[in-house]
Amino acid sequence: MAKGFQTLPGFRDFYPDDCAARNYVFEKWRAVAQRYGFVEYEAPVLEPTDLYKRKSGDEIVHQLFCFTDKGKRDVSMRPELTPSLARMAAARQRDFKKPLKWFSIGQFFRYEKQQKGRGREFYQFNCDILGESSPAVDAELIALSIDLMRDFGFTADDFKIRLSDRNAWTDFATRSGVPDDQLTAFLQVIDKLEREAPEKTAAKLEPLGVSLEAIREFIANGDTASEVITQIRQDLAARGMGDFVEVDLSIVRGLAYYTGAVFEVFDIGKGMRAVAGGGRYDSLVNLIGGVDMPAAGFAMGDMVITDLIRESETPNERLANSIVGSQSIDIFVIVADAEKRAESLQVVQDLRTAGYRTSYAYTDAKVGKQFQSAEQLGAKIAIVVGTEFPTVTIKQLDSREEKTCAISELMEEL
Amino acid sequence: MAKGFQTLPGFRDFYPDDCAARNYVFEKWRAVAQRYGFVEYEAPVLEPTDLYKRKSGDEIVHQLFCFTDKGKRDVSMRPELTPSLARMAAARQRDFKKPLKWFSIGQFFRYEKQQKGRGREFYQFNCDILGESSPAVDAELIALSIDLMRDFGFTADDFKIRLSDRNAWTDFATRSGVPDDQLTAFLQVIDKLEREAPEKTAAKLEPLGVSLEAIREFIANGDTASEVITQIRQDLAARGMGDFVEVDLSIVRGLAYYTGAVFEVFDIGKGMRAVAGGGRYDSLVNLIGGVDMPAAGFAMGDMVITDLIRESETPNERLANSIVGSQSIDIFVIVADAEKRAESLQVVQDLRTAGYRTSYAYTDAKVGKQFQSAEQLGAKIAIVVGTEFPTVTIKQLDSREEKTCAISELMEEL
Repeated sequence: MAKGFQTLPGFRDFYPDDCAARNYVFEKWRAVAQRYGFVEYEAPVLEPTDLYKRKSGDEIVHQLFCFTDKGKRDVSMRPELTPSLARMAAARQRDFKKPLKWFSIGQFFRYEKQQKGRGREFYQFNCDILGESSPAVDAELIALSIDLMRDFGFTADDFKIRLSDRNAWTDFATRSGVPDDQLTAFLQVIDKLEREAPEKTAAKLEPLGVSLEAIREFIANGDTASEVITQIRQDLAARGMGDFVEVDLSIVRGLAYYTGAVFEVFDIGKGMRAVAGGGRYDSLVNLIGGVDMPAAGFAMGDMVITDLIRESETPNERLANSIVGSQSIDIFVIVADAEKRAESLQVVQDLRTAGYRTSYAYTDAKVGKQFQSAEQLGAKIAIVVGTEFPTVTIKQLDSREEKTCAISELMEEL
Repeated sequence: MAKGFQTLPGFRDFYPDDCAARNYVFEKWRAVAQRYGFVEYEAPVLEPTDLYKRKSGDEIVHQLFCFTDKGKRDVSMRPELTPSLARMAAARQRDFKKPLKWFSIGQFFRYEKQQKGRGREFYQFNCDILGESSPAVDAELIALSIDLMRDFGFTADDFKIRLSDRNAWTDFATRSGVPDDQLTAFLQVIDKLEREAPEKTAAKLEPLGVSLEAIREFIANGDTASEVITQIRQDLAARGMGDFVEVDLSIVRGLAYYTGAVFEVFDIGKGMRAVAGGGRYDSLVNLIGGVDMPAAGFAMGDMVITDLIRESETPNERLANSIVGSQSIDIFVIVADAEKRAESLQVVQDLRTAGYRTSYAYTDAKVGKQFQSAEQLGAKIAIVVGTEFPTVTIKQLDSREEKTCAISELMEEL
């Protein structure tokens, strides 16, 4: 195609089937969040680049779609939502009763190497509770993520919540004599624990005065590693969700950002992918907006979860049904006599006003061809308007049953 | 706020109320399009800048958020959807039965001077039919825009469809002896007719060999100016929508782009604003994708329609009810005895599983304060879990009626 334009690498065209799949995920996100009493918000897709630097440091720029706008502002297409949320919550904190229970569904952009489950553009569900520091909030967010997975059709055989507590490690480090200024270095070692050779880890730990054995023992006894972990587990057990949770202290997540409990929704199938993740970040609202406000939240992207749904039987069946359902029409009106086009249009209009998804042929065509169109569009019913109008024929397209009735009785018949 | 970040000029924060209003508009857009048998799609928010230049010429760059990405590509945040649609439809034209009836709801960006009803970022509903050149398609799109306005609560007293036909003007120009190479200049004069002084218009027309009187007469007889206009009006009259349409040949719209019927949804209240607009553009798919495909469509932005809704009684009442409804919870579970928190959590979980929007207090609080929270969140029902559990009290918050029942009977009671 000589003249053809291409979609940018890492960006997606959502043709109707893909868009319906996207909407299915969005609808589940929205429905479960609302069941948990969350309200929806949205922030700008473009923000000052400094907003992201403030949270993540200058290196973040390397993975941003950032530029200077026509007004000489350094701006970025957002890579994440939390800095905007912190800005918004701080700016109007007096206008809302605490805790704020807010969720959002939006698009994000990162200039990254493409790989499976990761594009340069993706949608993300963000769910946060601000203004309350109780572990009950962490448990509520985890429960929401579990119910979300269950609504998609996943079971305890498909995923786990891996729960950890950053403060458990800070306390451990302090008890073990790790100097305060080495804390970040220490957490970096923990973060890499699963991916690095034991000898290398041990070598890094030595100057910090901690043994690999001590760390392994601490991890092995994770269930009781902190009061916060205990409370979260009790809370989730009360909801009948205890089986979904596994304490795994090797989870550290986002080094500079989290301040307490952290968790991941983890696919325990062959993929072993993190589907969602989050935790407590009590310092960010102050860092961004100069207002003290405890906060916790999590995010789920659309790409990994959609892959997982496609690969799993029940979840994929639900998705497939939803795609078909959202794109099918209810009724196709067949213009059997070209002279009756005006009458057919009135029938179409009445059906649409009554709420039916209705289509018809824009140009004259053989009745057989119109029936074909009706079936291709997934119509359940065809209504034939012909010479005998105001009497019409109603035909059920699955059972092939048909009956005639006066147009005035049509709505009652349906 | 010394540390505070600001939202970029022309961009919007959607706090929960604003987001609920946005979603209300989205839902109407989606519902009416689906009733008309349209399916949803979406294109990337970022596209090669050349895509927009191809359609609109190099000057478009002045109003684009455009930049060079880290891979040295000239890219733009999309100012409109149609070029992407043309690209997508051309690329996979063989995969879809014609006509394609596609709609989209997405965000767009233009670096423009800010004014009421116009931001640097806005949402837009795009609705297009591709692969069919019959005026029945133009009529279908106009009917959809009328039903959309009616669903918002507007009546024939609030808005009009202003219908025109670009080809009527081309034919008129040819008949009047306007040279072919002066056609664009001629259309530009027509486009400015309503805003320019008659003397100035007459002076511009003279070298083209057309009199202002001839043009006025042609406009006055617009109803019969072209066969396409006649067919569209007949089609809409058959649907009972004739009263909404007014032929107004002074509408030209987008000089280089449209190739046939064009229309605007026009607010006839004090604002006199164009709420939506569109028309036939049979050359674009070829220009962008090298494939011949007739097309027609229209777009409606979120800002003008939301302003109009807010300013009009019935539409605003519908919006307000929707905002309250979408943010209210159904049930608040009151933990009347801190010892029964675990039991309360189980009740919360059961209610949510049953589909109720349910909240509760994350920390222990006086019962009166919990009732207050319940009312602030718009709950219809409070369920009190106290020492007498497994017996609970169900209280209707509007009527203040209450009754007690065993927890096992709770779902039946609701």
